[in-house]
Amino acid sequence: HFKYFSPGTVHVAVVDPGVGTARKALACYWQEHYFIAPDNGLLDFCAEDGLYSAMHLTRREYWRAEISNTFHGRDIFAPVAAHLAAGVPFSHLGIPIQLTPRLRARKCGVEGDTLIGEIVHSDRFGNLIANISKAEFENFVGKSSFAIRLKECNLTAITSSYGDAAPGELVALFNSFDRLELGLVQGDARTSLAVAPGASIIIKRGS
Amino acid sequence: HFKYFSPGTVHVAVVDPGVGTARKALACYWQEHYFIAPDNGLLDFCAEDGLYSAMHLTRREYWRAEISNTFHGRDIFAPVAAHLAAGVPFSHLGIPIQLTPRLRARKCGVEGDTLIGEIVHSDRFGNLIANISKAEFENFVGKSSFAIRLKECNLTAITSSYGDAAPGELVALFNSFDRLELGLVQGDARTSLAVAPGASIIIKRGS
Amino acid sequence: HFKYFSPGTVHVAVVDPGVGTARKALACYWQEHYFIAPDNGLLDFCAEDGLYSAMHLTRREYWRAEISNTFHGRDIFAPVAAHLAAGVPFSHLGIPIQLTPRLRARKCGVEGDTLIGEIVHSDRFGNLIANISKAEFENFVGKSSFAIRLKECNLTAITSSYGDAAPGELVALFNSFDRLELGLVQGDARTSLAVAPGASIIIKRGS
Repeated sequence: HFKYFSPGTVHVAVVDPGVGTARKALACYWQEHYFIAPDNGLLDFCAEDGLYSAMHLTRREYWRAEISNTFHGRDIFAPVAAHLAAGVPFSHLGIPIQLTPRLRARKCGVEGDTLIGEIVHSDRFGNLIANISKAEFENFVGKSSFAIRLKECNLTAITSSYGDAAPGELVALFNSFDRLELGLVQGDARTSLAVAPGASIIIKRGS
Repeated sequence: HFKYFSPGTVHVAVVDPGVGTARKALACYWQEHYFIAPDNGLLDFCAEDGLYSAMHLTRREYWRAEISNTFHGRDIFAPVAAHLAAGVPFSHLGIPIQLTPRLRARKCGVEGDTLIGEIVHSDRFGNLIANISKAEFENFVGKSSFAIRLKECNLTAITSSYGDAAPGELVALFNSFDRLELGLVQGDARTSLAVAPGASIIIKRGS
Repeated sequence: HFKYFSPGTVHVAVVDPGVGTARKALACYWQEHYFIAPDNGLLDFCAEDGLYSAMHLTRREYWRAEISNTFHGRDIFAPVAAHLAAGVPFSHLGIPIQLTPRLRARKCGVEGDTLIGEIVHSDRFGNLIANISKAEFENFVGKSSFAIRLKECNLTAITSSYGDAAPGELVALFNSFDRLELGLVQGDARTSLAVAPGASIIIKRGS
């Protein structure tokens, strides 16, 4: 997560299936960090609060001399990042621009006594991470009892760490980024439960 | 690709199934870069134009004190590279030697109105890279129409980028190293076409 | 292996299924290197000769301000290592402590004319590494003939390198860490022999 890096760090992200087409190359300054990425939704998170500066990268003098159609990470993003890290002012990189969020925001939402979220990621251990933050969960649940439902599974407690449960046990906990995470202790929840990112996770509030 | 590194960079390559046997350890200076590798064909590319200097690495004072039979990368190649990077002159590393190409050159060749090449690599996305450069292709095809044949597939156009084609479409393009590459947009051509490195790729020239 | 790093290097190891529970965080100084790890057996090797200093990491001023239950590598071990590398004296990190070995020591042992060891690791090539050192082997075998038995396989010679045997041949050699290693030349012994770490390996001494 970017916040563990020093302020002023330049982050480059090039997940870019549209490389070589007309999508713009962008740089963004947000929360004291720089982000350089294609305009395909990767920088949506900077746009949420509106407190950012963004540049359309148009100044070719900060690019590689030859630009391929398939590797802008090498030809545009990395050279711009290197110039920025070496002291070229952000404002020199191109033309100021507004970010336009590109992807469907995956928010969790409350409907009556139900909080509906989504599994958005599974890590390399097969743990399943939901788009529900600790604050959202605690705000919703308050002092009530609760049930966390994922497919046929039903959990009624938050565990503080994987080490506090027995091997093979399914647990829900808040991970080190304060997101709700479901995991099988010393196992692979993704495979065992056959749950992939995109699955719904539902919190029911009791009395 | 080495040319994206600064002149004077020391590159170490130790793909070395013959480690511990009599094959020589080499250093080569070519196109302003240093290459250190076993004498098993890894440095063939430096020998193509003859404009290189090479050394048989014989000066044990630049090696680790103890030499194993199974890890010359640690015991010889890396220490020699470190000494070279630290300022030891190239000429001190051993005895001047001529490179002898070790591997079958995988060239593409023209037969009448056919250019025959080979898939030499598939990347981690399953894209298939041929040993046909953009220059060779354009020189052969000129202003004619053409057909690119790989197994049962037949392509009659070069696409400029993956993003210019629809998901699932098979495309041919020149990649960021100017080599002919066949790929399935947002898919895995290697698996889908069941084509592995070594397969023939044929360019037919039309009228 | 740590001995290829400079004296004074700080090594951090966080294989830590018990993260978030009561196991201690430790730092150890042994053989001129620093090791930082959870108290779960990772540092057993430092305890073998007793010539170490160890600290229970208790000084929170060298930790991240917020401590999660699932990522002490980020929150405790890495920050402590950074402070140590930056000059904080080892003795400031916490409270002196004795190491208590946590894991079953996997030693090889002699019974009459048999030396019994164990496969303790297989590398990414599928080579099988035993817990038998070159010194232990030579001390046991002396000038006798010998047979190395692993499952149905029987080897009666030590090969000096993989390159000295034919592709597909099963060989025993002393690897670059001077441990007995069994491998299939240009193949995968682990898969071909269906042998995993934990398997017994037996050396019989002849006449």
